[in-house]
Amino acid sequence: MASFATTCAVVIIYSLCFLSTLIESYKGSSKTLYFKWKVEYMHWSPDCNEGVVMGINGQFPGPTIRARVGDTVVVELTNKLHTEGVVIHWHGIRQIGTPWADGTAAISQCAINPGETFMYKFIVDKAGTYFYHGHYGMQRSAGLYGSLIVDVAENVKEPFRYDGEFNLLLSDWWHKNVHEQELDLSSNPMRWIGEPQSLLLNGRGQYNCSLASQFSSPPLSRCKFTGTEQCAPQTMTVEPNKIYRLRIASTTSLSSLNLAIGNHKMVVVEADGNYVEPFSVYDMDIYSGESYSILFKADQNPAQNYWISVGVRGRKPNTPQALTILNYSPTSSKNLPTSRPPTTPLWNDYNHSKSFTNSIKALRGSPKPPKTYNRRIMLLNTQNKMNGFTKWAINNISLSLPVTPYLGSIKYNLNNAFTNSPPPDTFSPVYDVMRPPVNPNTTQGDGVYMLRFNSTIDIILQNANALADNVSEIHPWHLHGHDFWVLGYGEKKFTKKDVFKFNLKNPPLRNSAVIFPHGWTALRFVADNPGAWAFHCHIEPHLHMGMGVVFAEGIYRLKNIPKEALTCGLTGKMFMDKKL
Amino acid sequence: MASFATTCAVVIIYSLCFLSTLIESYKGSSKTLYFKWKVEYMHWSPDCNEGVVMGINGQFPGPTIRARVGDTVVVELTNKLHTEGVVIHWHGIRQIGTPWADGTAAISQCAINPGETFMYKFIVDKAGTYFYHGHYGMQRSAGLYGSLIVDVAENVKEPFRYDGEFNLLLSDWWHKNVHEQELDLSSNPMRWIGEPQSLLLNGRGQYNCSLASQFSSPPLSRCKFTGTEQCAPQTMTVEPNKIYRLRIASTTSLSSLNLAIGNHKMVVVEADGNYVEPFSVYDMDIYSGESYSILFKADQNPAQNYWISVGVRGRKPNTPQALTILNYSPTSSKNLPTSRPPTTPLWNDYNHSKSFTNSIKALRGSPKPPKTYNRRIMLLNTQNKMNGFTKWAINNISLSLPVTPYLGSIKYNLNNAFTNSPPPDTFSPVYDVMRPPVNPNTTQGDGVYMLRFNSTIDIILQNANALADNVSEIHPWHLHGHDFWVLGYGEKKFTKKDVFKFNLKNPPLRNSAVIFPHGWTALRFVADNPGAWAFHCHIEPHLHMGMGVVFAEGIYRLKNIPKEALTCGLTGKMFMDKKL
Repeated sequence: MASFATTCAVVIIYSLCFLSTLIESYKGSSKTLYFKWKVEYMHWSPDCNEGVVMGINGQFPGPTIRARVGDTVVVELTNKLHTEGVVIHWHGIRQIGTPWADGTAAISQCAINPGETFMYKFIVDKAGTYFYHGHYGMQRSAGLYGSLIVDVAENVKEPFRYDGEFNLLLSDWWHKNVHEQELDLSSNPMRWIGEPQSLLLNGRGQYNCSLASQFSSPPLSRCKFTGTEQCAPQTMTVEPNKIYRLRIASTTSLSSLNLAIGNHKMVVVEADGNYVEPFSVYDMDIYSGESYSILFKADQNPAQNYWISVGVRGRKPNTPQALTILNYSPTSSKNLPTSRPPTTPLWNDYNHSKSFTNSIKALRGSPKPPKTYNRRIMLLNTQNKMNGFTKWAINNISLSLPVTPYLGSIKYNLNNAFTNSPPPDTFSPVYDVMRPPVNPNTTQGDGVYMLRFNSTIDIILQNANALADNVSEIHPWHLHGHDFWVLGYGEKKFTKKDVFKFNLKNPPLRNSAVIFPHGWTALRFVADNPGAWAFHCHIEPHLHMGMGVVFAEGIYRLKNIPKEALTCGLTGKMFMDKKL
Repeated sequence: MASFATTCAVVIIYSLCFLSTLIESYKGSSKTLYFKWKVEYMHWSPDCNEGVVMGINGQFPGPTIRARVGDTVVVELTNKLHTEGVVIHWHGIRQIGTPWADGTAAISQCAINPGETFMYKFIVDKAGTYFYHGHYGMQRSAGLYGSLIVDVAENVKEPFRYDGEFNLLLSDWWHKNVHEQELDLSSNPMRWIGEPQSLLLNGRGQYNCSLASQFSSPPLSRCKFTGTEQCAPQTMTVEPNKIYRLRIASTTSLSSLNLAIGNHKMVVVEADGNYVEPFSVYDMDIYSGESYSILFKADQNPAQNYWISVGVRGRKPNTPQALTILNYSPTSSKNLPTSRPPTTPLWNDYNHSKSFTNSIKALRGSPKPPKTYNRRIMLLNTQNKMNGFTKWAINNISLSLPVTPYLGSIKYNLNNAFTNSPPPDTFSPVYDVMRPPVNPNTTQGDGVYMLRFNSTIDIILQNANALADNVSEIHPWHLHGHDFWVLGYGEKKFTKKDVFKFNLKNPPLRNSAVIFPHGWTALRFVADNPGAWAFHCHIEPHLHMGMGVVFAEGIYRLKNIPKEALTCGLTGKMFMDKKL
C-alpha cells in the first residue's frame, strides 16, 4: 500500500477504552468508533503562506474517520475557540433516526458554545466516500473539514476490484480571514471575496510557486520542498500494473473543479456514496459538496512519474492549478514529470461539463425512484438586491436562519421561532430566466417547506440569469438527510414537456446535484427521514447570502431529541421555564 | 458649547417610546434610559487604514450613554455577529443589586449568542466619567467600547465649576485581527502582538501620517483631511478665558498613556468616578481602565491653536503620539499649531509616573476607609511558563475561566463548575520579586476568593520581575463591583512595616490602580456587594494570558438572578433538567 494512504490512516479509538456508557452492543461485526476532538484556531501554512486555520486536534484538515457500514461513530466535540460557536456536519450521512446529529447550526442544533462539548453519535449505514465540515457562518471556509470514509461490511464485496486506494479532499483557500469575508459579503455594497488564492489537495497547496514552474503562466518560481512542510504535496505512489481506487471529495468554498491524471484513464464507480454504472473519462468535474471514487490502472511507462492536476471550472479562473505527483514505484518520487500537467478544460466549456454529468447513471440493481411524485416544488434561483445588499434568493426569499433550531421549534410547536407561512412551491410563470430580474428586490425569510412524511417530492431547481446581463452561475445543491434521484438536467426554463425526458430507469442516487447556467435540474426523493434538513447551494458565500431552503418532515415522530442540541433560543427558554 | 461635544451628543430614547414594561417609576427626576443596540463587525478606518471593527448600531466607538445619577439604564443588546458570542461590561458601574448586569462572560453571565438579545438593566448611582467595553475573549481590542457619562442629580452641584466640557476616550489599535492576536498569545511559543499601530482619540488616529509632520521622527507625511474621514481628528473648540472640563478614559488594550495640552495647565478633579482633591499638572498618565476629569482654562493666546498630545508610557514605544487640536474660537480650527506637540515623558521615567499617581488624594469629605481589615490577600503577579506556553499568574495560578458563570455556579452550589479549593491568600515569603522566577512553571486554575459578606478586604498587589532579567512591567488592575481605597504604593517587596505608611486619611476611592515595576500597591474595600467580581490586569493580552482573579461575596443573598444570564454550562443544564 502506498505511503500516501498511510499518511491518511485513521486513528480509531474504540469506546471501550474511554467511556463505558458509549459502548454499543456489537451488531455482528459493527463497532462503536469513539473520537474526542477539539476544534481550535491554529497557525498553519496550507499553501506555504502562513495564515490561521480552524483545525481539529492540531491537524488540518481534521482527522480522517474510517468506519465500516453499521458502525456507530461517536465524536465528542469540544469547542476550544475563544468566542465562537461551532458545529460539524457529516456530509452525505443521512442521519436516519438521529437528525439532531446532522450538525447544521440553527437547523438541527444550537451551535456548541466555547468550552462546551457536544456528542455527535450516528450510524454510518452506507459505504462510500464522505466528508465532514463546519456548518456555522463560513467556518467551512476557515478550514474546518476532513474526510469520512465508510467501508463495506466485512462480508460484503464492492462491485469492483482494486489493489490499493488514495484519498483526495479538495478545497480552496483565501488569505483573507473568514470573519472579514463574511463581513465583505454582508456589506452594502457587497464586496465580492474574489477567487481563492490557492487550491488545496488534502489541505496542501502552493501559493506563488509551482511544481511545474516551466509550464506556469504567468511564470512562477519552482517550489522547493523538503517534504515536511505543511504545504508539501502528498505524492501518490503506485506499483506498475496495479489498480487503484482514488476517492475524491470537494469541500471547496467556491470553486468548481476538474481533475485529471496525466496519461491515465479514470473509471468512475461511485458518486456521493452510491455506486454508478462505470464509465471512463480522462478528466472529471467535481463540484463543491460532491464525492466520487474512480479506478485507474498504473499502466503507463513506470520510468516516469505523472501529474495529477486540479483546476477551476465554471468561473473565470484566477487561481493556479493544484498539482501533485503520481509516482511509479520504484522511480523516485522526486523525479518531476517532464510533461505539461493535464490542461483543465476551458472554464466555460459547459458542454464538456454536461457530458460528464450526464454520463453518471446508477449502477444496475440500484434502488429505483418511485414512478410518481406527491408534490412538486419548483425552486427558482435568483440573484437579488435588498436595500442595497446583494442576496441570493429562492422563489424570491433569501434564507435568513432563525435563532432556534427548526428541529426543536417544530417539535415543540414554538410558533414564534420562525415565519409560519411556508415559502412558495413555485414562481411566476412569466419569469424570464434568460434575463436579469425585472424587479431585483427580494426579502429575507425563514419559512420551512413542511413535507408530508413518506411522501415523494420532486424538486425542479431552476437557474436564472444573475443581476448582470448574460451571466448565470453554476450552483451545486446539497440535500441533508437524504439521497435524491437525479431525474434530469435541461436547458432554459423547465416546461411540462420536460417531464417526458426524465430518467426513471437508472437515475443516479446522490446528495448533491448541480444546476448549469440558465438551466434546470430535476430531483426526486422520499421524505422518509424525520427531521429538519437544509437544502442549499454548497458554495459557502452563496449560502451566506441566502441561497438555501429548509425541509422538514415527520418531526412529530421523534421521541428523544437530546436537550443538549436545543439549549439556545426559544427551545432553551422553554426548557428553562419549566418550573419544578 | 463646542462642536466636539455636539458630535458626541447622546441619543437618549426614553423607554416610554418603546417598551412600556420597562418604564421605571420616576424617583424624583430619575428616568429610565432605554437603548436598543446591535453589535456587529463593520469595515472602518480608525487610523485611516481600513480594517474591521466591532461596532454598535453602525458606530465606532459605540454610542455615548449620558445619564443622570439615579437613572436606570436599559440596554437591549442584540448580537448580530455571525458566529461569536458577546457581552458588554459597564466599567466603573458597581452594579449594586444587579451583579448579573456586569457583563463579564463566564463570571456574571453567559455570552450572548449570535442572534440573541440580552437586557442589561442597572442604576447609575454615582456621577462620573465611565465607559463600557466587551469582556469576552479580546473583543475590547476589536473595538467594542464607548463612553458612559453620569451627571450629578438635578439638585446637586459638582464641587467645581466649568463652562463647557469635552470627552476623550483613548484606545490603541492593531491592524492584525483580534482572533489572530488571541491565537498568537495562546501559541507555543507565544507570539507577542507587538506595539499598537496607532493610538486613537474617540476612535480616531492617523497611521503613516501626522498632523505635526514637521516634528515627526521618523518623518511622516502631513495628514490631509476634509473632516468627514472616519480618522479625521475631532477638534476641541473653546472660547477664550472660559473653563472646560475634559473627561478622559482609557480603554487601551495594552498601552499606558500620557496626555498633555500644549501650554495649558490641567487641574485633576475626578478619578474613576470619584472626586479628588484638585491638583495641577502639565501632563498626566492614564492607564488602561482609568478615567479622569481635568479642568483647564482657555487662558492662552487666542490667535493660536494648541496641540493635545497622547503618547505611550511604561513600554518602549513604537507608536506615534495621537494628536488633536485645541482650537480657540474664532481662530480657524484649520490653523495647525506651529509649536512642537507636548513631549510625552520618557517611557521609563517611572518617578514622573509615581509623582502623578501619588498626587491623587480623595476630595475632603469623601468616604473614609474602615480603620482595619478583616482579611488581607497578597497577590503576587508573575510571568510564567506552562508546557512551553507563556502565562501570567497570580500566586502561581493562571486564571482560566470556566464555562459556567460563577454567579450561577456559586448561587446553585454546582460543585463541578470550578475548582472548589480556593486560591492561596499569599505567596512564598522567600520569593524574590527582583529576579526572574527560579521555577517559572505555573498551572491554570479557576478557583474563587470567597469573601465574607460585609468584611473589609485588604489587597496587596505585589509586582515581580518577569521572565527576563531586569524586566518588570506596569499592570493596571481593575476591580468589578466595587470601588477600593488606594492605601499606598511602594517599592520592592511589601513588608509588615509598610503598613505604617498606609494613607488612611484621604486615600482616593477608585476602581483601578496600577502596580509599578518591582513595586506593590495596597487596596482596601468592603465586600458589600453580592455577586461574582473579576479583579484583573486591564491589559487585554495579560488577562487573556491568565492575569486575574475572581472574588465572590454574599451570592446567597441574591434572590432574583435572571435565568437569561445563566443559559450556558451547568446552570443551563440544571434549569433544563428540572422536570415538569
